[in-house]
Amino acid sequence: MSTETVATAPAPRMTKSVPSHPLAPLTAFELTQAAAIIKASWPAHTDLHFKVVTLQEPPKEEVLAYLNAEHAHQPRPTISRTAFVNYYIRNTNKFHEAIVDLSSGRVLQNILLGKFVHANGDGEEIVRIEKAALEDEGVRAEIAKLQLPEGTVVISDPWIYGSDGVNDEDRMYQCFLYMRDPFNATEADSNHYALPLPISPVISTESMKVIRIDLLPTGVDNTIKSVEKYNIHPPNEYLPECQNLRTDLKPLSVIQPEGASFQVTEEGTSSVLEWQKWKFRVGFNQREGMVLYDVRYDGRPLFYRLSLSDMNIPYADPRHPFHKKSAFDLGDAGAGIMANNLKLGCDCLGSIYYLDAVLSDDKGGAMPMDNVVCIHEQDAGIGWKHTNYRTGRAAVVRSRELVVQSIITVSNYEYILAFIFNQAGEIDYEIRATGILSTQPIDDGIEVPFGTVVHPGVLAVHHQHIFSLRVDPMLEGNDNRLVYDEAHAMPRSDFNPHGIGYYVQETIVEESGGYDIDYDKNRTFKIQNPNVRNPINGKPVAYKIQAPAFQKILADKDSFNYKRAEFSDHNIYVVKHRDGELYAGGTYTNQSRGGTGVRAWADRKENVKDTDFVLYVQVGINHVPRVEDFPVMPCEILKIHMKPVNFFDKNPALDVPPSEQSFNQSQLLSEQHHQATVESKVSHGGSCSAPKL
Amino acid sequence: MSTETVATAPAPRMTKSVPSHPLAPLTAFELTQAAAIIKASWPAHTDLHFKVVTLQEPPKEEVLAYLNAEHAHQPRPTISRTAFVNYYIRNTNKFHEAIVDLSSGRVLQNILLGKFVHANGDGEEIVRIEKAALEDEGVRAEIAKLQLPEGTVVISDPWIYGSDGVNDEDRMYQCFLYMRDPFNATEADSNHYALPLPISPVISTESMKVIRIDLLPTGVDNTIKSVEKYNIHPPNEYLPECQNLRTDLKPLSVIQPEGASFQVTEEGTSSVLEWQKWKFRVGFNQREGMVLYDVRYDGRPLFYRLSLSDMNIPYADPRHPFHKKSAFDLGDAGAGIMANNLKLGCDCLGSIYYLDAVLSDDKGGAMPMDNVVCIHEQDAGIGWKHTNYRTGRAAVVRSRELVVQSIITVSNYEYILAFIFNQAGEIDYEIRATGILSTQPIDDGIEVPFGTVVHPGVLAVHHQHIFSLRVDPMLEGNDNRLVYDEAHAMPRSDFNPHGIGYYVQETIVEESGGYDIDYDKNRTFKIQNPNVRNPINGKPVAYKIQAPAFQKILADKDSFNYKRAEFSDHNIYVVKHRDGELYAGGTYTNQSRGGTGVRAWADRKENVKDTDFVLYVQVGINHVPRVEDFPVMPCEILKIHMKPVNFFDKNPALDVPPSEQSFNQSQLLSEQHHQATVESKVSHGGSCSAPKL
Repeated sequence: MSTETVATAPAPRMTKSVPSHPLAPLTAFELTQAAAIIKASWPAHTDLHFKVVTLQEPPKEEVLAYLNAEHAHQPRPTISRTAFVNYYIRNTNKFHEAIVDLSSGRVLQNILLGKFVHANGDGEEIVRIEKAALEDEGVRAEIAKLQLPEGTVVISDPWIYGSDGVNDEDRMYQCFLYMRDPFNATEADSNHYALPLPISPVISTESMKVIRIDLLPTGVDNTIKSVEKYNIHPPNEYLPECQNLRTDLKPLSVIQPEGASFQVTEEGTSSVLEWQKWKFRVGFNQREGMVLYDVRYDGRPLFYRLSLSDMNIPYADPRHPFHKKSAFDLGDAGAGIMANNLKLGCDCLGSIYYLDAVLSDDKGGAMPMDNVVCIHEQDAGIGWKHTNYRTGRAAVVRSRELVVQSIITVSNYEYILAFIFNQAGEIDYEIRATGILSTQPIDDGIEVPFGTVVHPGVLAVHHQHIFSLRVDPMLEGNDNRLVYDEAHAMPRSDFNPHGIGYYVQETIVEESGGYDIDYDKNRTFKIQNPNVRNPINGKPVAYKIQAPAFQKILADKDSFNYKRAEFSDHNIYVVKHRDGELYAGGTYTNQSRGGTGVRAWADRKENVKDTDFVLYVQVGINHVPRVEDFPVMPCEILKIHMKPVNFFDKNPALDVPPSEQSFNQSQLLSEQHHQATVESKVSHGGSCSAPKL
Repeated sequence: MSTETVATAPAPRMTKSVPSHPLAPLTAFELTQAAAIIKASWPAHTDLHFKVVTLQEPPKEEVLAYLNAEHAHQPRPTISRTAFVNYYIRNTNKFHEAIVDLSSGRVLQNILLGKFVHANGDGEEIVRIEKAALEDEGVRAEIAKLQLPEGTVVISDPWIYGSDGVNDEDRMYQCFLYMRDPFNATEADSNHYALPLPISPVISTESMKVIRIDLLPTGVDNTIKSVEKYNIHPPNEYLPECQNLRTDLKPLSVIQPEGASFQVTEEGTSSVLEWQKWKFRVGFNQREGMVLYDVRYDGRPLFYRLSLSDMNIPYADPRHPFHKKSAFDLGDAGAGIMANNLKLGCDCLGSIYYLDAVLSDDKGGAMPMDNVVCIHEQDAGIGWKHTNYRTGRAAVVRSRELVVQSIITVSNYEYILAFIFNQAGEIDYEIRATGILSTQPIDDGIEVPFGTVVHPGVLAVHHQHIFSLRVDPMLEGNDNRLVYDEAHAMPRSDFNPHGIGYYVQETIVEESGGYDIDYDKNRTFKIQNPNVRNPINGKPVAYKIQAPAFQKILADKDSFNYKRAEFSDHNIYVVKHRDGELYAGGTYTNQSRGGTGVRAWADRKENVKDTDFVLYVQVGINHVPRVEDFPVMPCEILKIHMKPVNFFDKNPALDVPPSEQSFNQSQLLSEQHHQATVESKVSHGGSCSAPKL
C-alpha cells in the first residue's frame, strides 16, 4: 500500500451544524462533504468512482462515555465525525481507502490498496457492465449462433467474478446471460431465469470491456459444446397477470385503532425506538443496512451493537466458471444499498412506520433511500397461559412483538431481514430467503447430483446460504464472558441408583476462536456478566443464544471458498473487541483471498473472558433446490433467538395485561355455537401480597 | 389375561341413526351406548369406573375403500362402528379392555388386563385423590409439624406414581403438597407452586387411602430431614391483579370484514375443513385431542392421519421419590380430556371458529367439551417476493396460514398445540410449552446441578420434554417409501480441481427402526412415492420433514424411564402400518414397563419400502429452568415442518393474489413521511404465454 495525497485545492469549510449522535450514519451533507474533501485532494477533473462513503464509528471507549452521559442526562462529550471512504480513479484499478475527519476537514489517511483488494460492485456499475456485455461484438456473434427469434431480448446478470487464483488479479465481472420469453419480448419483467443461455462474458472493470467469453458446460461433465441453435422451452413467469389467481382468499387486516405502542424519535440519520421497556437506536448504512445500537431493556444495557455481518452463498457445481460462484452479499454489494423501498400495504401489514436513509452514489453525491426500514407491531399468539384446573380460572396474555425489518434484493435473490423483540425480554433475528434461484442451462433429459432441474432446460445448482450475525454485548456492563452449558447423564451410583439423573455443567470460553453447538450434549452458549447476580438464585445474569444447527461450508479447507468465508465453519466465533472489526468475511470480500476476517482475528488467541468481546453467530441453509422453489421460492425461514437467563427476577412478561375480548375484539364465526360468557374473574376478596418479592 | 363375560340383561337395542363417517369420533349416543352395553355384561349394581370410551378406528383397508368412494361421490360401503373401552371394577385393580360392536350391540372382547397394565388418571379421580391425601390423619400430623399459620390451605398435586420396579405393581399416586399464600388463603388461584412442602403422600387407587408418606430431600444430597417448622417465603403470584400491569400496550385486532376464507362442514363429531386447496377431516378424542384425517391438497392425497402420539417429560433429580417423575401426558391422562375450553378473544385473535367435542366420563356418561379446537386464519408475513432491479417492479404475496389449535392443561403445565397450513403446500405442527414449572422444596442458600432455584425455597428440576408426532402418509397413494438425503463434499479431482464441489445422495430406508438427523451431513428425511413422478424433472414426488435436533433422553438404557419412553431415543421412527398401533409409548403408559410401543414395533424389522408405513417424528426441549420461567413460563416454541419436494410443478403459492394496499388496508404512522404512490403495474401491453407449461 502506498500513500498518495495531493493537495491542490483548499478543503471545503465545514458549516456549523447540530452535532450528530456519534453512532448516527453520515448525513447527506456529511456524505457529500467527505467526497468533496477527497476530490479536493486530487487534481481537478480527476474522475473518482466512489464505492463507499460511510461513517467510521468512533472508538467504542469514546462512545461508551458518550452513552453513559446520554443516559444520565449529563452533558455529552464532543466526538469527531469521521468518514470512511473507498474509491477508485475511475476505470483504473487504483483502489483507495481514506479516512476523513469531517469536524476539521482533514484527510487522516488516503491509501492506495494493493493487489487482491477490490471494491464492492455498485448499482450504476452493474448497469454499465450489462450494457458492455450485450454490446460486445464477440458476444453478439456467439448469441447469433443461438438463432434466437427476431427481437429476442437478452439479459445479463452481472456476477462478482469470484476467486480461484487463476489470472484473477484484476477486478472482473462474470456475466451470466439469459433471455426474456422471445414471444413476449416487451414484458420487461419476464422471468429470464427460465431461459438461461450457455454464453458467459467476462468483463474487466478497468476497461469496461469484454476480455473473455466463457461457454458454459450444459451436460453432466466438463464438456463444453460450441454454441448451437437454442432449444427454446416455454417460459415460467411469476408476474400475477400470468397466473390463474386464487379467488377465494378473503381480506385480513391488522388494525390498531389507538395507534401503535411504539415511539420513534427521529434524530437525523438515526432514530430511537421505544417499545414495551425496550429502547435502542437504529441506524442504516450502505454495507450492513439496519444496525441496532445501545439496546436496553427497562434501562438495563444488553447489546452495544447488533448487525448482519455478512452472508456467503457458495455453489456446488465444480465446473468452470461456476466453481467461482461464492457471493458475499454484504461485502460484494451491500445490504443497505440493495434495500427495497417498502410499500405500504404490500410489504408490511398493519400500522407501519417507515424509516428513510441516505447513502452515497458513485459520484460522491447523496442518494436518498426511502422506506428502507419498516417498523410495526404484530401479534405472535399466546405469550403465556396457565389454568388452575381446580377452579377453571385461566390467566393468559398474548405475545406482542415489535418488528424492525428491511428487505434486500441481490440480483436474483431476496432476503427479508428482521429484528424482532417481545415482551419477555427476547430478541430474535429472522432471515427469510426468497426471490429467484440462480440458474444455468442444462441439456434435456439429464440430471446431475449437484443440482436440480427446476424447469425444462434449467438447472438450479445446490448452494449454501451462511449468515453471520454480529453480536456485540454489553450485558449490564462491558466486561462479559461467554460460557456454554452441557447436560450430562449422571453415572449410576448410590446417588443415582435408577440411572435417570442428569446435571448441567458450565464451561467458560477463555480464548477467542470458533465454537460449535452440539445437540447431543444440549450445548447452549450464553453471554454472562459474572459481576451481576440474579437476586433470586445468585447466578450470573445471562442471555442465551439459540441458533439452529446447520451443515458448515462443504468446500474443502484448501479452497478459496473456504478461506474467504471465514465465518462459515463454526456456529459461533468469539473474538476480543477491536474497533473497526465489523465484517466477518473481512472488509474487502470481492475476489478476496481470505485471512482478514473473523477466523484470522480468532487466531490471535486472545483472552475473551471477563472482557469486551464480540460474537459472530452463524446460521445457514443447505439449499437443495426443488421445483417448488421456481420461478420464485416460498420463503425459507431461519431464526436466531436470544433469551434472558437469570437476568430477571421472574417472567418479565408477567405484567402484560391479560388477554381479553374487550381489548382483542375477536369475532365468532361458528353460528350454531354457544360461546361461554367471558366473565371477569377479578377477585374482590383477599388482597395479593405485594407483587414484588 | 382372562375373559369374563356375564350376560344378565339383554344388550340395549341400537336406535337407527344416520351413519357416521367411519373416522368420526363416537357420538354422545354411541359413548353412552357402549358403556351401557358393558354395564349390561356385569351383574346389576356393579360399579364400573370407566377410563376410556373411544372409537376403535376401523381397519385402514376398509377406511381407504370408504374414502375412495367418498371422494369419487360413489355409494359408500357400510362400516361397523366399534368402541374401545377401558374400565375398572371401581376401587379394585381389575382393569379391563373391551371392544364393543355398536352396530350389532355385541361385546367382541372383554379382557381382564394383567399386572403392570394400568389405566390413565381421570379428572374425577384426581379430585378424590387430593381429598384423600389432605384428609389423611398421618398426613395431617406431618403437616402440623410445619407449624403453618392458622387457616393455611394445603394443596395436593396428584402425580402419576411412575415406575421403578420397587413395590410398584399397584396403581398409585404420588402426591406433591404445596400451600397457598398463607396470608391470602381465600385466593383460590394463589400460585401454590411457590410454596412447596416436603411431604409427599402415596395413595393406592384400590383403597383410595394413603399407604405411605414420603418425605422429600431438600438439601444437596439424599438426606431426608424430619419435618420441622416451615420457613415461609414470600409468594409469587401470576394473577393479573397481583401485578403492576403495563399501561402502554395499545390494542391490536385482526379483522376479516368479508369473513374467513375457510369452510367448516360439521358432520356430527367430525368436521371437514376446506381452505386454500387444503381439505381434511378433524376429529377429537380423549387421548389424542385433535386428529386430522384424509389430508389432501388440491385433491391430491397427502396424509391419512396426523396426530400427537404422546409426550414424555422425564426429570433429572435422581433422589427418591423424584426418580420416578416421568410423565406421559397423553397415555397417563389424555390430550382430549385435558383440553381447555377456549375463550373468544382471550385465547384466539381474529375471526374464530370453534369446534366442540364429546367425551366420556368415569360413569360411562357423555361429557360435552365445548370450544376445544379453534380454527382461524393468520397473516404470516411475506410469502414470497421478487423485485426486478432493472425495472423496480416488485411481485409480492403475503403468506396466509390456517391454524387448527387446541390447548391442554396437564396439572401445572400447558401445551398449545397447532396444525398450521399455508398456501405453499406446507404443514407445520407447532408446540408451545407454557404454564408452571413442577417445583419441589429446597433449603436456603444451596444450589444443585440438576435443577435451578427459581424462587426462595423453590427448586425447579431440569427435565426433558420429548414429543412424538405420528405421521401416517398416503402421498399420492398408500405405498410410500422413506428416504434421506445427505450432502457430501466431492473429493478433489479433475472434475473438482478447486475443492468446492458437493453433491446430494439419497438413501432408501428399507427396514423399520429408529433413525436420526445429522446436521453435519444435512441429513433430511423425505416421504416419497416412486410411482408418481414430477412432470418437470422426473423425480419422485415427496414431502420432506424438517424437525429441529434435540438431546435424546438422558436416562440410561437400563432405566425404566428409557424403556418406557420408547420414542425418546431417535429423531424418527418408521414402522410398517398395523391397525391399532397409534401410541408411540404403548397403549398403557401408566406405571408401564416398556416393550409395547414404537421401539418394540420397529424391532420387528419389517420392510418399510414401497409399502404402507407410519412415521413417528420426535422433537424436544431439554428444559433447564431459568428464573424467567417462574411463576409462569413464557412460551417455548417447537415446530415440525413438512414441505413438498418435487410434488408440484412450480411454487404452489404462485397463484396467490398479489399483496396490495387495497386488500390489506395498512396504515401509515410516520407523519412527515412521503410514501410513494402504490402504482398499479399491470402491463397492458404484451400478453403472457399460457400460464401452464
